[in-house]
Amino acid sequence: MSMKDIDYSLYLVTDHRNKTDEEFLNIIEEAIKGGTSIVQLREKTASTKDFYQLALKVKEITTKYDVPLLINDRMDIALAVDSEGVHLGQDDMPADIARKIIGDDKILGVSASTVEEAIKAQIDGADYIGSGAVFPTATKDDADSVSKEELKSIVDSIDIPVVAIGGITIENASELKDTGIAGFSVVSAIMSADDPKEASQKLREIYIS
Amino acid sequence: MSMKDIDYSLYLVTDHRNKTDEEFLNIIEEAIKGGTSIVQLREKTASTKDFYQLALKVKEITTKYDVPLLINDRMDIALAVDSEGVHLGQDDMPADIARKIIGDDKILGVSASTVEEAIKAQIDGADYIGSGAVFPTATKDDADSVSKEELKSIVDSIDIPVVAIGGITIENASELKDTGIAGFSVVSAIMSADDPKEASQKLREIYIS
Repeated sequence: MSMKDIDYSLYLVTDHRNKTDEEFLNIIEEAIKGGTSIVQLREKTASTKDFYQLALKVKEITTKYDVPLLINDRMDIALAVDSEGVHLGQDDMPADIARKIIGDDKILGVSASTVEEAIKAQIDGADYIGSGAVFPTATKDDADSVSKEELKSIVDSIDIPVVAIGGITIENASELKDTGIAGFSVVSAIMSADDPKEASQKLREIYIS
Repeated sequence: MSMKDIDYSLYLVTDHRNKTDEEFLNIIEEAIKGGTSIVQLREKTASTKDFYQLALKVKEITTKYDVPLLINDRMDIALAVDSEGVHLGQDDMPADIARKIIGDDKILGVSASTVEEAIKAQIDGADYIGSGAVFPTATKDDADSVSKEELKSIVDSIDIPVVAIGGITIENASELKDTGIAGFSVVSAIMSADDPKEASQKLREIYIS
């Protein structure tokens, strides 16, 4: 396994809905300028061709700012655009199979909402865990909820970093500060912000303070 | 490029809808027993995990009968189950990018409904072309139609094999006999047949007679 020194402190998961490509790409760039340290491109309805072409455009931005890009679910897209890694949910490719395909150098993230899933993901080769939903959320219908106590248990049960996701806002993020997480993962708090750069700055300040 | 001596004469594209896994897998096995010479697994709504697990089961059958398995659209699934290849539509990954990812040994098929698309696919590294719809079809809403004359032009414009697809039945298949195609590709004619083995036998007889 190669060294991976990744800054998970502010982890943006994208949401393309109701946005033009230009608006979407602009939000990502502003978010990075404001302190977003890692980006996960998540597209659940696009054709493979459209997903690929959008991923190429996002990769240009993340490369420009030297921020890692992860692709949600689709290893084919990750390989095609040579993103830094993939993020897999529990309904995606099994993590051990994914690790064999992407190799040891790419970042492999796995969603886990229980200690059992988190331990299994670590054994299967995950580099980090995304855990949530830590707050109520409208982004994912099927999101399991993870209490602050459960989040702490997950952090304590594994050696790899845990990012918290689900309903995190500038208002509530500080509630997660003593859980041992490696970062805040957000969708709406940045994607729907009036000023994505400022939202990123505020979220990052909360994390590092 | 390695040698690829593929029998495209009877090419089954699967349709999982309204079938249990057991029924679905049984149809594929019966079809192969009846002469289906290559299988393309096509899943447009399954989660990656479900697609992967189904592909593993189909791969067991195709391996047992030494018939190539192609995965529609998803190179990640193809790599995960080590299928013999992939088939890409015009809305899927660009063929030249796909070729780089899957390597030279895997079969790369591309859908093309015009001479221009067929020539581009060959240049991009396709091993064969799927061309249609040669007859009216209810399977794909967005299927372009390809006349018998257009099909002949496509066959004549490239050096790689062309399989015809779209609405081919035991009743109309013989109409395609003087087009130079390498095989009949069917969905419903086998997937919806009362006896998939017999349907395969009849279609294969029409092709080789």
